[in-house]
Amino acid sequence: MIKVGVVGGTGYTGVELLRLLAQHPQVELRAVTSRAEAGTAVADMFPSLRGRVKLQFSDPANSPLDSCDLVYFATPNGVAMKQAGALLDAGARVIDLSADFRIKDLGLWQKWYGMEHASPALVADAVYGLPEVNRQHIRAARLIANPGCYPTATQLGFLPLVEAGCVDCGHLIADAKSGVSGAGRKAETNILFSEASDSFKAYGAPGHRHLPEIEQGLASAAGRAVGLTFVPHLTPMIRGIHATLYARVEREENFQALFERRYADEPFVDVLPPGSHPDTRSVRAANVCRIAIHRPQGGDTLVVLSVIDNLVKGAAGQAVQNMNLMFGIDECAGLSHIPVLP
Amino acid sequence: MIKVGVVGGTGYTGVELLRLLAQHPQVELRAVTSRAEAGTAVADMFPSLRGRVKLQFSDPANSPLDSCDLVYFATPNGVAMKQAGALLDAGARVIDLSADFRIKDLGLWQKWYGMEHASPALVADAVYGLPEVNRQHIRAARLIANPGCYPTATQLGFLPLVEAGCVDCGHLIADAKSGVSGAGRKAETNILFSEASDSFKAYGAPGHRHLPEIEQGLASAAGRAVGLTFVPHLTPMIRGIHATLYARVEREENFQALFERRYADEPFVDVLPPGSHPDTRSVRAANVCRIAIHRPQGGDTLVVLSVIDNLVKGAAGQAVQNMNLMFGIDECAGLSHIPVLP
Amino acid sequence: MIKVGVVGGTGYTGVELLRLLAQHPQVELRAVTSRAEAGTAVADMFPSLRGRVKLQFSDPANSPLDSCDLVYFATPNGVAMKQAGALLDAGARVIDLSADFRIKDLGLWQKWYGMEHASPALVADAVYGLPEVNRQHIRAARLIANPGCYPTATQLGFLPLVEAGCVDCGHLIADAKSGVSGAGRKAETNILFSEASDSFKAYGAPGHRHLPEIEQGLASAAGRAVGLTFVPHLTPMIRGIHATLYARVEREENFQALFERRYADEPFVDVLPPGSHPDTRSVRAANVCRIAIHRPQGGDTLVVLSVIDNLVKGAAGQAVQNMNLMFGIDECAGLSHIPVLP
Amino acid sequence: MIKVGVVGGTGYTGVELLRLLAQHPQVELRAVTSRAEAGTAVADMFPSLRGRVKLQFSDPANSPLDSCDLVYFATPNGVAMKQAGALLDAGARVIDLSADFRIKDLGLWQKWYGMEHASPALVADAVYGLPEVNRQHIRAARLIANPGCYPTATQLGFLPLVEAGCVDCGHLIADAKSGVSGAGRKAETNILFSEASDSFKAYGAPGHRHLPEIEQGLASAAGRAVGLTFVPHLTPMIRGIHATLYARVEREENFQALFERRYADEPFVDVLPPGSHPDTRSVRAANVCRIAIHRPQGGDTLVVLSVIDNLVKGAAGQAVQNMNLMFGIDECAGLSHIPVLP
Repeated sequence: MIKVGVVGGTGYTGVELLRLLAQHPQVELRAVTSRAEAGTAVADMFPSLRGRVKLQFSDPANSPLDSCDLVYFATPNGVAMKQAGALLDAGARVIDLSADFRIKDLGLWQKWYGMEHASPALVADAVYGLPEVNRQHIRAARLIANPGCYPTATQLGFLPLVEAGCVDCGHLIADAKSGVSGAGRKAETNILFSEASDSFKAYGAPGHRHLPEIEQGLASAAGRAVGLTFVPHLTPMIRGIHATLYARVEREENFQALFERRYADEPFVDVLPPGSHPDTRSVRAANVCRIAIHRPQGGDTLVVLSVIDNLVKGAAGQAVQNMNLMFGIDECAGLSHIPVLP
Repeated sequence: MIKVGVVGGTGYTGVELLRLLAQHPQVELRAVTSRAEAGTAVADMFPSLRGRVKLQFSDPANSPLDSCDLVYFATPNGVAMKQAGALLDAGARVIDLSADFRIKDLGLWQKWYGMEHASPALVADAVYGLPEVNRQHIRAARLIANPGCYPTATQLGFLPLVEAGCVDCGHLIADAKSGVSGAGRKAETNILFSEASDSFKAYGAPGHRHLPEIEQGLASAAGRAVGLTFVPHLTPMIRGIHATLYARVEREENFQALFERRYADEPFVDVLPPGSHPDTRSVRAANVCRIAIHRPQGGDTLVVLSVIDNLVKGAAGQAVQNMNLMFGIDECAGLSHIPVLP
Repeated sequence: MIKVGVVGGTGYTGVELLRLLAQHPQVELRAVTSRAEAGTAVADMFPSLRGRVKLQFSDPANSPLDSCDLVYFATPNGVAMKQAGALLDAGARVIDLSADFRIKDLGLWQKWYGMEHASPALVADAVYGLPEVNRQHIRAARLIANPGCYPTATQLGFLPLVEAGCVDCGHLIADAKSGVSGAGRKAETNILFSEASDSFKAYGAPGHRHLPEIEQGLASAAGRAVGLTFVPHLTPMIRGIHATLYARVEREENFQALFERRYADEPFVDVLPPGSHPDTRSVRAANVCRIAIHRPQGGDTLVVLSVIDNLVKGAAGQAVQNMNLMFGIDECAGLSHIPVLP
Repeated sequence: MIKVGVVGGTGYTGVELLRLLAQHPQVELRAVTSRAEAGTAVADMFPSLRGRVKLQFSDPANSPLDSCDLVYFATPNGVAMKQAGALLDAGARVIDLSADFRIKDLGLWQKWYGMEHASPALVADAVYGLPEVNRQHIRAARLIANPGCYPTATQLGFLPLVEAGCVDCGHLIADAKSGVSGAGRKAETNILFSEASDSFKAYGAPGHRHLPEIEQGLASAAGRAVGLTFVPHLTPMIRGIHATLYARVEREENFQALFERRYADEPFVDVLPPGSHPDTRSVRAANVCRIAIHRPQGGDTLVVLSVIDNLVKGAAGQAVQNMNLMFGIDECAGLSHIPVLP
């Protein structure tokens, strides 16, 4: 059994992680920390976990984190960078679901995240946890930077094209739509039910923090800088990301075959038949990305539709997938839930 | 492995049954029938099942149903009563998720369901599949009448009071609210998104088909006739039933303790601590009923709050629970999914 | 033109009031105050008002409130009781949409609202602004206690029965469901989209602040104390209240005729034909209460269904109706909007 | 008073038209036809209209349509093209909200709509009813082809750029999101609440009927053919369209100023301040298009955000605006409703 701790279990990625870990056949959950909720039973805050998670939230200072084999950080940005080092030194491995270790260029990170980085050395050490790109490095990693939700959906949708070098990588467009849980479990008026329900809007059009993360990943795949216009939107649903991706063809290919080939051996990427339109509910609560490829009117603009559950393949599920790789167990262990539909 | 067939797999209870059965460790799914969709891959209609259910819908006439150990009917009312007999004769057992075998009084059934019953003898034979009441009979049954969704939530909420004889059983009130999936997957304008979303209404106030089913169950528990006012409501959510139950106290009791005692050994009924208000999402996609008991202002009116997922404990999950009992395996097999929250 | 000021224009009743007042033919909006947002253009916070409300939020201290003919308080409980007196002394009339002046029994108010009342004398002076009961007193009033949302729907539904004395007033039951905007525009996690969407729950079952307000109104109509069990529920919709009311018949009546007679001359109460089930969207954004009466199975329990838009007939619209009465203009002025459906 | 008839009043554009017309100060509603619902009171089908629309649906054959000054067609495609001619001959004017007269190129229309056109001569005669482009022609028109919802939002967002010739018109991208009411009030499973709620998907990526309509309008503005990639999406909300538009800059401009200048005199187009993100609720139930312009990271890709209520500025409201122009009355008459928020 892998002894696991979770730092920051009161947000949506935290509770989703607990849902997955509590059903994982090879995990023993040892601690869930929350400074604010220390002493509260986890299942009192999240009744869905009654009878399944028997721990109380514990104060990080008194938690047996350093005796864990693995510690997840499901904390706001800026926490893991301060605490991961000590845990690594104590011999634990770490998967950080925040953005602290995702961007290799520290100056870029500091510009977008508005703070000084506390552990520059660990940034260099961290492995970006997108198994479809970095599987081998993940197996050997001590510290994983778990990808963001938009970056997961967007990179998986663009990767085959960018790797093959058959589209104009200087003018990619990602029009991405997220469910409201992507904004976290924070007391903010703009994500109240009465604000976000029965309405739709873009946000962050001038620039969103996930832009540099996506550009870094695609540039690495392309072998050169890429140009991306990324517009996120808030959608009145709880879970789900739908990325609609546009790229200009520069070299002809059988694009459907290209995608099928690229993801033939991937357990959690599903390339749909030609003509498909995946809906986000087809991945609800499951660790899968479904992708469809279109070429409207046979023109020179490709349209890729890529959907994930932002809390699963876009966060907690991918984190569990990374854990499975790191500990040499079946990559799919604890991740075989069928999506919940309707 | 239990060889299983599903008749009528294109509705919501059907697809939910497939989700549960495809993940059940002791089930081999042999056939899913649909006259209208014969030849279509199940996963083409429900992409959530891609890679997990590899069958095509088959025509009932050419399906290996009679070589199954168990056949589920997830069909509209009036189908199972015509077809169950032949399957039973061939040695299969049957769980009917429709209302065909739920009401013992044939005249009453015919009045509420507006048709002649095709198999009166089987009605007498059928066991009402509410394990919290009929567990022993279910184990031995050949034919199960799987309870309705409102009847499950309402009976589980009233049972301890009615069995104990401590409330006025002549004037029970059940104000019940259902998600829209309870209306089925039928092309009807009144359950369109643009009709049912962002709105709330009662329906069937003069009389709903689940009324005689609930009254039959409660009368059996009380040992005499009961009087129930039952008003169902349509709520803008996909899954979930919330029954708010009112009963007048006739004899003092520790009602919290009464409920805790009654359900102490029940794996799928969860009595919440005093003061609780269960929300339907706390049972989403899981086979559990959560119940809270209130006595406002210490008056003589008790309020019981009872929530289930209408498609799981209110339909497919309860049907799997019944199967587990009938085949002598762990009652919880394949039913340990943690609710999906948020 | 009636010169009008609004104290506290940043909540949902505030913005709804602005929507109605900006379209009212006899109102001149002079000031909208908000300490926190002073200096911000109202239309920057609520883009729906662009081009229609040109004021900025002003600091209450520097606002021309005392030169207004009428001041609305759309503030949290506890504000109006401190500020209304000075405005009344300056000659303005006041309509308070909070609960400060609704309960005549000060001890009761203090128990439910958890604070000392700052202006006991004004409580005695205030007129409860339910025009269907108090029309004549409202015309002459200086200070109106505008009813709560649940109390409006519930009282209008019970009044004909209670006034006629034909039901058991000791055991009334109100099972009420509200849209989330009823909880206000406050940054609280429990009303986040991801918490309140696609779920349903009761709250306040042990006791809700609207209980004494409803009991006071019904007792006054009955001429004696009443007993009410009141259970509010949170529904995943923005606007709307649906009250399902239960009462035991004590004396036979033609109940449909009783309701039609009672509300024959009421411009904003619509008694539906027998057999109807009003949905909340049929009153969305309009100042109307629709009511249907049922007697299931001809038994002795009556079921009344009463729906309003909580922000209109349950708050801002009723406040405008009261203003129209106080200023001797057409009661329906500015309130003739047709509900928005779908 | 303008005597008005509505053919086909049972869909969402129909009921929205009735809402607007019943509140219009210069309209007398004479007939609402529906073959299927002839004899039913309009307000029985749409209780929101109780007391406001007193007509019954009438059979088209017995309706006083040809004595009307104006007849609206709110019918499925293929109806108006057969019936408009006779009404025009009888002296009525006609506004068709379907697509029958929108496309000038008959071959193109027949390809996308899959039927032979019944009145080619009227197509030539019809004026495309986008007032921001065709105001003068609309004033003089007998027959108006009222624009589609996506085409309204998309054209208004692209027009200033295309007219100015400052972007690459060969590679425009419109990523458009619609509320579910855009799919009409049809009994189809794919728009059931339980299918469309809490989920998001693209549809029609290979080609949607609104594509040729948008291309025709933009080509006319550009003075040459344009190339457009148009991907519509279904969003879990009732009303609203959000078009996110992408265009490559070919000639520098002050784009914010360009839009403000273009729409300076338009009563129903609102160009937002720089940095804005309009949400669809800011136009809910109102006849307005709000537009924001972004240039992410100062690159060469412009992003225009354009929102409308699909049933108002995208259908019924625009039809009333066209009527106002045709009859020489105030263009804003009956269209001054403030959006309903929240």
